[in-house]
Amino acid sequence: MSDDEKIMAQCIRLAKKGKGFVSPNPLVGSVVIKGNKIIGRGYHKKYGDAHAEVNAIADAEKKGFNVKGAELFVNLEPCAHKGKTSSCAEFIASKKIKRVVIGMKDPFIKVNGKGIEILKKNAIEVSCGVLVNECRELNKFFIKYVTKKLPYVTLKIAQSIDGKIALNNFESKYITGEASRKAVHKLRSEYDAVLIGKNTAVKDNPSLTVRDVKGRDPIRLVIDRKNTLPPELNLFTDSNRDKTFVITGKSAAERKTHKYLIRMSDDSKEFKVKDILKLLYKFKLNSILVEGGSKLFSQFLKEGMFDEIYFFIAPVIIGNGISPFDSIKIDSLKDKEVLLKEYISILDNDILIKYRKCLQE
Amino acid sequence: MSDDEKIMAQCIRLAKKGKGFVSPNPLVGSVVIKGNKIIGRGYHKKYGDAHAEVNAIADAEKKGFNVKGAELFVNLEPCAHKGKTSSCAEFIASKKIKRVVIGMKDPFIKVNGKGIEILKKNAIEVSCGVLVNECRELNKFFIKYVTKKLPYVTLKIAQSIDGKIALNNFESKYITGEASRKAVHKLRSEYDAVLIGKNTAVKDNPSLTVRDVKGRDPIRLVIDRKNTLPPELNLFTDSNRDKTFVITGKSAAERKTHKYLIRMSDDSKEFKVKDILKLLYKFKLNSILVEGGSKLFSQFLKEGMFDEIYFFIAPVIIGNGISPFDSIKIDSLKDKEVLLKEYISILDNDILIKYRKCLQE
Repeated sequence: MSDDEKIMAQCIRLAKKGKGFVSPNPLVGSVVIKGNKIIGRGYHKKYGDAHAEVNAIADAEKKGFNVKGAELFVNLEPCAHKGKTSSCAEFIASKKIKRVVIGMKDPFIKVNGKGIEILKKNAIEVSCGVLVNECRELNKFFIKYVTKKLPYVTLKIAQSIDGKIALNNFESKYITGEASRKAVHKLRSEYDAVLIGKNTAVKDNPSLTVRDVKGRDPIRLVIDRKNTLPPELNLFTDSNRDKTFVITGKSAAERKTHKYLIRMSDDSKEFKVKDILKLLYKFKLNSILVEGGSKLFSQFLKEGMFDEIYFFIAPVIIGNGISPFDSIKIDSLKDKEVLLKEYISILDNDILIKYRKCLQE
Repeated sequence: MSDDEKIMAQCIRLAKKGKGFVSPNPLVGSVVIKGNKIIGRGYHKKYGDAHAEVNAIADAEKKGFNVKGAELFVNLEPCAHKGKTSSCAEFIASKKIKRVVIGMKDPFIKVNGKGIEILKKNAIEVSCGVLVNECRELNKFFIKYVTKKLPYVTLKIAQSIDGKIALNNFESKYITGEASRKAVHKLRSEYDAVLIGKNTAVKDNPSLTVRDVKGRDPIRLVIDRKNTLPPELNLFTDSNRDKTFVITGKSAAERKTHKYLIRMSDDSKEFKVKDILKLLYKFKLNSILVEGGSKLFSQFLKEGMFDEIYFFIAPVIIGNGISPFDSIKIDSLKDKEVLLKEYISILDNDILIKYRKCLQE
């Protein structure tokens, strides 16, 4: 790792502290250096709050340093537009920073090079493209959101080694172990929302909250075309009930217990996943964790509307039962969905295998 | 690693050279040391040939060394009985070896401590129990064979990440990739026999030979209760046809093309796996690799008649299809089969997960 990379890695670590709180904004961390010494650190803490660069400079100044002539590191190009806060590029220039090191260019159309332009116009030395892969991974939700105008979609599957997510009688609590469940709770704390199908809501009656780890609860989305889910479900009765949204048909009846409805523009027998995602984008949700069941997983796969899949695999054999993609039917192995293995991790007795979608773009 | 362990590791490496050729005998390697120098090496090369200790001593003497006062290392207790060769313990004593270091005691009833007794009676210093786990792993086939009077059974499953070994139309060529197939060929070269069910023989028409790696072909076993498999199958026509045995019912008709029959003692509608294994034990097969299909895997699991399972997992999703244990039906997750994870290895895009049976003994 070069010196620039080491400091960029620090920016990324700082940025991660904002996980779960800045959406749909990107995760950004920033470090100010003077005379080979770190004099300021900052990150974007919460949607609507000050940007990382501003916080890092403020941190340095609070400690009594003059940032004139200093170097500023940041994992994403400083913004050029006045949004919730004023333009960071202008602010940095006004502070007479000498050099700015940027992880990656901001793909958001209103920035996308314009921040760098402002810096350069102010005779600031700019280095862009440091730990680019790490920076992209950090902000994968944001990048998808601003470039595709769709939320990032992760399917989370907990199964036996023989590929069963439930018995035929729908029993599924618990196939995987405690370490896997903790990892799932951590994931939930980082996604804007979790999404389940109607069957899963009824059969599992899940809470979909963040329990075994620190972190904020996600929004809970459940698809129920006719809005007829039983009101006694945890989704509608627990202390998080205000975070439950039912995705329902255009003319489904209102119900007192189901406070928040996201209405599709039609009543079609099977919503298109892409239409749901477009709607969720409009609600400014940049990341969705899909937690089942089999029918919903299959729909996401069929439409190609997913970015990655986490398989949590328990060391158990179930035999006959429900597989994660039972509704997919192919007649030839040529038509199988090929995934890209990203990593494997050991979670006690379970194994987590993470795949990405193979991009043909 | 202690010095003794380092030399024992060498014995194990030597022993492995006999893989596929010594069954039902154990894999044994031996090293002779004098004045901190290795003066002889040997291993058991082939069933019926000289034992490792004899070969190691002969190797030292051939090089002009006198083994009197030397130390001999061997991964398994020297034999006490005169079998195909004379007793190794007596032979070692006759050579005036000073010290014998033994990996593990021989569980075979005719040895089982008697070899060590002979050595001690001859005033030889004996250390027993060095790298015991590695020595047991090396000879797992042999240990099962002599202690349980049954062959060691490994189920080999090649599946998609969603747990499918074939499409509903039985297409299964090829779900996993080349690296996995190579690993399977390597496995075959180490097992006495591979076993498949009738359906797999018909639908896949497999060769079950060792192709992509060096090694000898295993015996091919196929279960066909009525001996009615089509004679044009590879099993009966290729150059290995003399290695094909049909496991069939007591009164199934003879057929010209199906030369070798292993007859069960009855014609029952479904053979018990345990009865098949007892018969294979009598045929001196100490290790069976079960290669499918789903019905056969399920039978082995139901009867608890397996020792380990290799899952070769491809990064593909198939959806609806045939799962490895479809014939198992449980009504409660309490009845799931719990396995013991042994290791994971990466085979290009595929992943191999090896489990052991959880022993309740």
